[in-house]
Amino acid sequence: MSAFADRHIGPSEHEQAKMLAECGYGSLDALVEAAVPAAIRNPRELDLAPPASESEATAELRALAAKNRPMTQMIGLGFADTITPPVIRRNVLESPAWYTAYTPYQPEISQGRLEALLNFQTMVSDLTGLDTANASLLDESTAVAEAVLLMRRASKAKSSRVVLDAECLPQTVAVVRTRAEAVGIEVDVRDLAGGLPEEFFGVVVQYPGASGLLRDKGFHEEIGTAAKAAGALYTVAADLLALTLITAPGEFGADAVAGTTQRFGVPLGYGGPHAGYLAVRKGLERSLPGRLVGVSKDADGNTAYRLALQTREQHIRREKATSNICTAQVLPAVLAAMYAVYHGPDGLRAIASRIHGLAGGLAGALRAGGVEVVQEHFFDTVIARVPGRAERVLADARRSGINLGLVDEDHVRVACDEVTTPDTLRRVLAAFGVDTHVEPGPVVLPAGLARGSDFLAHEVFRTHRSETSMLRYLRRLSDMDYALDRGMIPLGSCTMKLNATAEMEPISWPEFAGLHPFAPAEDAQGYRELIDQLCTWLAEVTGYDKVSLQPNAGSQGEFAGLLAIRAFHKANGQPEREVCLIPSSAHGTNAASAVLAGMRVVVVACDDNGDVDLGDLQAKVDEHRDTLAAIMITYPSTHGVYENGIGEISRIVHEGGGQVYVDGANLNALLGLAKPGEFGGDVSHLNLHKTFCIPHGGGGPGVGPVAVRAHLAPYLPNHPLFPGAGPDSGVGPISAAPFGSASILPISWAYVRMMGATGLTQATKVAVLAANYVAARLAPHYPVLYTGRDGLVAHECILDLRALTKRTGVTVEDVAKRLVDYGFHAPTMSFPVAGTLMVEPTESEDVGEIDRFCDAMIAIRREIEEVAEGRWPLERSPLRNAPHTAETLAGDWDLPYDRKLAVYPAGVTPKGKYWPPVRRIDGAFGDRNLVCSCPPIEAYGS
Amino acid sequence: MSAFADRHIGPSEHEQAKMLAECGYGSLDALVEAAVPAAIRNPRELDLAPPASESEATAELRALAAKNRPMTQMIGLGFADTITPPVIRRNVLESPAWYTAYTPYQPEISQGRLEALLNFQTMVSDLTGLDTANASLLDESTAVAEAVLLMRRASKAKSSRVVLDAECLPQTVAVVRTRAEAVGIEVDVRDLAGGLPEEFFGVVVQYPGASGLLRDKGFHEEIGTAAKAAGALYTVAADLLALTLITAPGEFGADAVAGTTQRFGVPLGYGGPHAGYLAVRKGLERSLPGRLVGVSKDADGNTAYRLALQTREQHIRREKATSNICTAQVLPAVLAAMYAVYHGPDGLRAIASRIHGLAGGLAGALRAGGVEVVQEHFFDTVIARVPGRAERVLADARRSGINLGLVDEDHVRVACDEVTTPDTLRRVLAAFGVDTHVEPGPVVLPAGLARGSDFLAHEVFRTHRSETSMLRYLRRLSDMDYALDRGMIPLGSCTMKLNATAEMEPISWPEFAGLHPFAPAEDAQGYRELIDQLCTWLAEVTGYDKVSLQPNAGSQGEFAGLLAIRAFHKANGQPEREVCLIPSSAHGTNAASAVLAGMRVVVVACDDNGDVDLGDLQAKVDEHRDTLAAIMITYPSTHGVYENGIGEISRIVHEGGGQVYVDGANLNALLGLAKPGEFGGDVSHLNLHKTFCIPHGGGGPGVGPVAVRAHLAPYLPNHPLFPGAGPDSGVGPISAAPFGSASILPISWAYVRMMGATGLTQATKVAVLAANYVAARLAPHYPVLYTGRDGLVAHECILDLRALTKRTGVTVEDVAKRLVDYGFHAPTMSFPVAGTLMVEPTESEDVGEIDRFCDAMIAIRREIEEVAEGRWPLERSPLRNAPHTAETLAGDWDLPYDRKLAVYPAGVTPKGKYWPPVRRIDGAFGDRNLVCSCPPIEAYGS
Repeated sequence: MSAFADRHIGPSEHEQAKMLAECGYGSLDALVEAAVPAAIRNPRELDLAPPASESEATAELRALAAKNRPMTQMIGLGFADTITPPVIRRNVLESPAWYTAYTPYQPEISQGRLEALLNFQTMVSDLTGLDTANASLLDESTAVAEAVLLMRRASKAKSSRVVLDAECLPQTVAVVRTRAEAVGIEVDVRDLAGGLPEEFFGVVVQYPGASGLLRDKGFHEEIGTAAKAAGALYTVAADLLALTLITAPGEFGADAVAGTTQRFGVPLGYGGPHAGYLAVRKGLERSLPGRLVGVSKDADGNTAYRLALQTREQHIRREKATSNICTAQVLPAVLAAMYAVYHGPDGLRAIASRIHGLAGGLAGALRAGGVEVVQEHFFDTVIARVPGRAERVLADARRSGINLGLVDEDHVRVACDEVTTPDTLRRVLAAFGVDTHVEPGPVVLPAGLARGSDFLAHEVFRTHRSETSMLRYLRRLSDMDYALDRGMIPLGSCTMKLNATAEMEPISWPEFAGLHPFAPAEDAQGYRELIDQLCTWLAEVTGYDKVSLQPNAGSQGEFAGLLAIRAFHKANGQPEREVCLIPSSAHGTNAASAVLAGMRVVVVACDDNGDVDLGDLQAKVDEHRDTLAAIMITYPSTHGVYENGIGEISRIVHEGGGQVYVDGANLNALLGLAKPGEFGGDVSHLNLHKTFCIPHGGGGPGVGPVAVRAHLAPYLPNHPLFPGAGPDSGVGPISAAPFGSASILPISWAYVRMMGATGLTQATKVAVLAANYVAARLAPHYPVLYTGRDGLVAHECILDLRALTKRTGVTVEDVAKRLVDYGFHAPTMSFPVAGTLMVEPTESEDVGEIDRFCDAMIAIRREIEEVAEGRWPLERSPLRNAPHTAETLAGDWDLPYDRKLAVYPAGVTPKGKYWPPVRRIDGAFGDRNLVCSCPPIEAYGS
Repeated sequence: MSAFADRHIGPSEHEQAKMLAECGYGSLDALVEAAVPAAIRNPRELDLAPPASESEATAELRALAAKNRPMTQMIGLGFADTITPPVIRRNVLESPAWYTAYTPYQPEISQGRLEALLNFQTMVSDLTGLDTANASLLDESTAVAEAVLLMRRASKAKSSRVVLDAECLPQTVAVVRTRAEAVGIEVDVRDLAGGLPEEFFGVVVQYPGASGLLRDKGFHEEIGTAAKAAGALYTVAADLLALTLITAPGEFGADAVAGTTQRFGVPLGYGGPHAGYLAVRKGLERSLPGRLVGVSKDADGNTAYRLALQTREQHIRREKATSNICTAQVLPAVLAAMYAVYHGPDGLRAIASRIHGLAGGLAGALRAGGVEVVQEHFFDTVIARVPGRAERVLADARRSGINLGLVDEDHVRVACDEVTTPDTLRRVLAAFGVDTHVEPGPVVLPAGLARGSDFLAHEVFRTHRSETSMLRYLRRLSDMDYALDRGMIPLGSCTMKLNATAEMEPISWPEFAGLHPFAPAEDAQGYRELIDQLCTWLAEVTGYDKVSLQPNAGSQGEFAGLLAIRAFHKANGQPEREVCLIPSSAHGTNAASAVLAGMRVVVVACDDNGDVDLGDLQAKVDEHRDTLAAIMITYPSTHGVYENGIGEISRIVHEGGGQVYVDGANLNALLGLAKPGEFGGDVSHLNLHKTFCIPHGGGGPGVGPVAVRAHLAPYLPNHPLFPGAGPDSGVGPISAAPFGSASILPISWAYVRMMGATGLTQATKVAVLAANYVAARLAPHYPVLYTGRDGLVAHECILDLRALTKRTGVTVEDVAKRLVDYGFHAPTMSFPVAGTLMVEPTESEDVGEIDRFCDAMIAIRREIEEVAEGRWPLERSPLRNAPHTAETLAGDWDLPYDRKLAVYPAGVTPKGKYWPPVRRIDGAFGDRNLVCSCPPIEAYGS
């Protein structure tokens, strides 16, 4: 096994032997043999190159990086170069305390990133002039698509038509078309100067337009009035930086504003990851998709943050969900929010003014040099008319290191940004044959468009002006949070494994970070090679034929996979095949994705064992034989079990004319042992942020590639602006960028490269061992809900607390919060079964840490017994009072247990103790009193 | 002012106005005018290029880096390439929590790095087989020089001769000669095969030798016996990695072992910084120079670490000091210790065996190919005899990317290391004309030399085998410590200013990190340019003519400066000029350096104002007129005051034939305002780790360039292996590497480049403002001891607690420890005046943080009054009980103040509270019961 695999995998051989003994097996292979059905076992070793060491992989990545050419990027179209303040890069993007954190579902131990996200929401809400912003979406194009769906839901208009401004970004139009087509929305792209149609449910205006165009305020107000008159809603796709200078859309009647925060310090990264945003006016907040951070209070009445209105979310609403967005882009969102914190309103305005001034200077110089400039008013983008010469101008600019945008053979687009200098413009002008010097000009805006309203007035945007202050703010926030760098996060289904430094380092290299997604292919040869290799490796390990890396989240991978299935049936003349079977145990996102792909969900029952009920499946297939499109099944199941019936399930569905979608969420239990593409799957999405080591980043970014067998390959995503991104026959783009979140792909590339076939396989085996070890140790204390062959689980196990709860009143939430006192992040709560905890230790935790966790769970079990036996009234027990803060200790104490037991229970040593910053948070209070932007500073007084 | 300067400087213009008002001045210039004597003011703006932004400076540094060629380095001579585990690079070298920490003089808030350093000492002590190792020295050559001085002190022999093995590294021989010459030690370099002389006080043997040679155990034992017989001591300069395979020197009679830990994961960095080490046998520990970490206990009886035997140190012993070493190389030492923690004994042995096996394979292949190999036994270095062809072999190797070592025209040195692969050796062999493949061979050692003893048996070296575990260990340690990323460290004389990320990032780039210090000059053109520019800038800002960057610590800069003065007098035919005047207020290191430079210290009195007593000065100059060599004076004074008499002092000394040495420790108060080289100084050393933003790294690395006027330039350091490193007429090398700690010079380069003339000057002014603001705010509560013109201080101020202590018993230590409860690192304690606190806020702290500090000091003053008024008995007061841990809160409480006051006194909020891991540490207990390696795990039970 590779030296790296030895570091990635937590338990040493010696430790593995101990764990195997506890499970009652003599060897890892014997355990795996017993656990994994022989029928699905992959008979051959994975076909991968021998593993590289960390230094070798780094050297190979440097060689790939050297094949990229990060030019000065002035292509525009929603992607602008920006300067990541080094203090933010090092202390957020490169800090394990931030990037190894999980989604803040346990808010008491996530206050740092929740505050950062609240800053994000405040920033978006202030700049857009709307009441409520979510805590990020995947990118601008999908954010607009979400806005379109939101308008359809909220509009009273009968129409199924949405109107898109012809000035909308081309990738946004294409993504909206992909999404709209699936659910029967008609997309009407038109020049809004010509007016609106009679009937429509919504309209999207790009602000400023893709051509740079800034229209006057009257225009925008008229759209708002017309939309209102038609019972339609009005979405503005806005450039957040421009909004520091121009009127907030909320002030001219927009119901929603969508866009990207990329140019707030987030590297171009060849297209992503970036944080999209979506803000809505009052009254629409409960229709808003995505994560929403809200203010509430903790058990001591202190201000505390948590995710608000979670009942909106797809994992709860399932097929009734209005969006399948299951995650956010937390890490990029934090970067963007911190950029705003660091620059503050004055700094942002200065940056915007300078960019605008440079663009104005450029336009003036072009005109003076005899080149026609198309738009009178613009923010940062100038379209120059150069009849017949456009390609030559681009070529000349490239020779001086600059990429400009080709509009058509007669027009060139020049987009200025934060890195643009007078010298850049000198070179740009030279490419146009104009020889002059440009300094930033004044701000010149169309009638009435100058922004009058204040923004970012909150103190947090006015305090951290020095690097020292910023550094401390970032540290203070991250210190509040519990991430993988403190201890185990045994989250079932989320696979919180090691995110190795050697995997993470390359993503900040300028050769990966500095590329525009629409840069010429020759600039991105290193990326292309990396992408091709990664696709090949992913195909090999999954047994599929073709992989697309475009989906920038698991939910998008699901959507892409289902679209491929639909397109396949249509191509076969069976458009009526639209029923998607989904087992009752499935993750809610499956159902939501199916609905968004225009399918009809039919639920298949599970038997007492938690497995798919084959009888019910056969019955459902028979019932829907003519309309059966697919089954979506997770393998191993969401119950953490290798179902024996998987072969039979595939057979039944295929026989019924359906396709088999194997959700790759649990691929960590399969890699090297079995290939979904070979044991029945037609398509899977993978979660590179789970099995392939992209960190969770506090709740994104993720990457959700879709992998298909050959017959579905013609229906993978493609991209209108990048022919090589997918098949011509593809379903269109599902992300703004051709390769989605390209800049984090080196992480997964490095993981596979350093693990090799043996390492990947060994990791899977040890993950299975670890889960079975936990099950073996904890089963005497908490029943393990479902098991498979030989009583074994796969890579995770469900601890059933329902009987205990019934008997004692102690809930899974009590146990989860009490685990914080013991120094742990809770396992997954009440998924897939309410009243249970699902534990996934992964292969990366050594036995010391796993034992510490099991010991804590057993100690908590004893504490529950104290409650059961009446020694502690539940309400006054350490379970219900958990988590305990240090502050609690300093006050009076009249509880039936002492302070030491509260904060230093068995196994917790004072040195290295993690202190939660708040006590248990009252979520319902926050939902009743919804506040989703930074509360005034006085709110913090306790 | 530059955008970066705005971020570097804490107080905004608005805040500065507030601070000026408190000080009673209308403008910054008015304050500076009042504070700084007009006579020394620099009339012109500094002549520096306009400042670069962070991105511009980074781009320029990338361009410089691109001019370096990091080849495969097989030159040997004590510098070996190594692999820094990425998890350690990111989480130590690139983590502000580690690199912005100060020297652990406040041990209660430094337990993390003290544990890391104890690991370092344990590692060195175990591997060398000696009882006590210090917590690092500057490099191998100075470590050997320190060992020579130690042997001289500890030896009973009358001789002043030290014998050096002809196998000693050439740079070590040269450094020892420089140091020996100054204090009258005769250096006898000889082939020890020929035996030892009759009389000598010490002998140094290189192990393995510079030629790779490994001699048998009998040889080493005989040296030990002979040394003992002569009443001499026996030092071994050992390769720590080789010691995993060969007998520990402590087992064959060595009294001391010195060397470097560089190859334990610390990048070559063109020569440094690396951590040297020195270990001694029982009985010599009180003679050991440098920092020593020891185990003691805290007020609750818990195990706790702190610096041991501090009374040995130069700042206490002054002219009686036996070394002038004032710092250590903490950050590189932590890297090396963590490398050992991560690899453990088995891993280190495997690395050493592989390297040795490759060298053996190479030797065999050379012999088989007809090339003579000189040594029969070696560890990693092979000398090949190629009559007349050596230069050609080197040239051929270079063409395939490899640097070999040139011994002479007939011999080539090939040193294997951790990055050597069979493919490397294939290319090496090809350069010799041998075409064959090599795999690692077996371990083959001379008679009796195989290591039999165990090492690194402590649990810490056997636990952290997975990256996850290592990551958490590093986080846990750093979380115990208070560094600049948490809050202000207002250390007088230490200038804890911002270490900006943009300054820090380049030092991990491979183009800076991967160069061997003896690589051909053409490989290091980027370095050369950077060094030349930095020297030019430093000369410009100090007003001197020539700068040497070789000294790798302030103490070494002092030594180099004094050597230059001595050499100057000798060259003028006045060798008798050896009296060095030192004001009584001087830092102890001044006196120690003077002694090490062979000078005689004469103390000059200070007047009641703290200034040099001009009358006494004149009297001393008159008294020593014929033997006067120099005066060493700090400006502004160590009292933090701009003395008016500086011009007069220079005049008197110059008139007496002496040279003026201006200690640059306080240059932060001068930059841009006054130039020591123009107001009287002939020579200064600078502290790049203070004024020029190299972080303190928890106690090193530092860089201490020496700057001189033209007449002293011929006497700057040079280097025998690198002619361009200094003048031919120079005093010899004072560091192992030609340019000292070259790899951290980009930090200071970036600082000057981004600040520009205006920024640097503004920083100085704001530093002066901040100190005067603190003085103004605190003077009503604590008398400010010394002031200069207009009652103003310079960049720091002394708070005099002596009267308070006399009246109440509350000591400066009580206040210092109580400040921890308030969330601060204490100011400098009892320096330069016992019973006082010296505060230096620097320019980087904003007024919010400074006010928070002043408020805490005022609140503490009120607490002192509670003691004075008898409400709290001192022993039971929060002052004496400070610092309070969280653990204290959980126990019983019978103190006259409550828990809240203990840990959340005024201004301290629960969120973001820093918790010290231990209570006040009993230093005396530790010194009485000296333990300087990791205590057994049981010791931690409380």
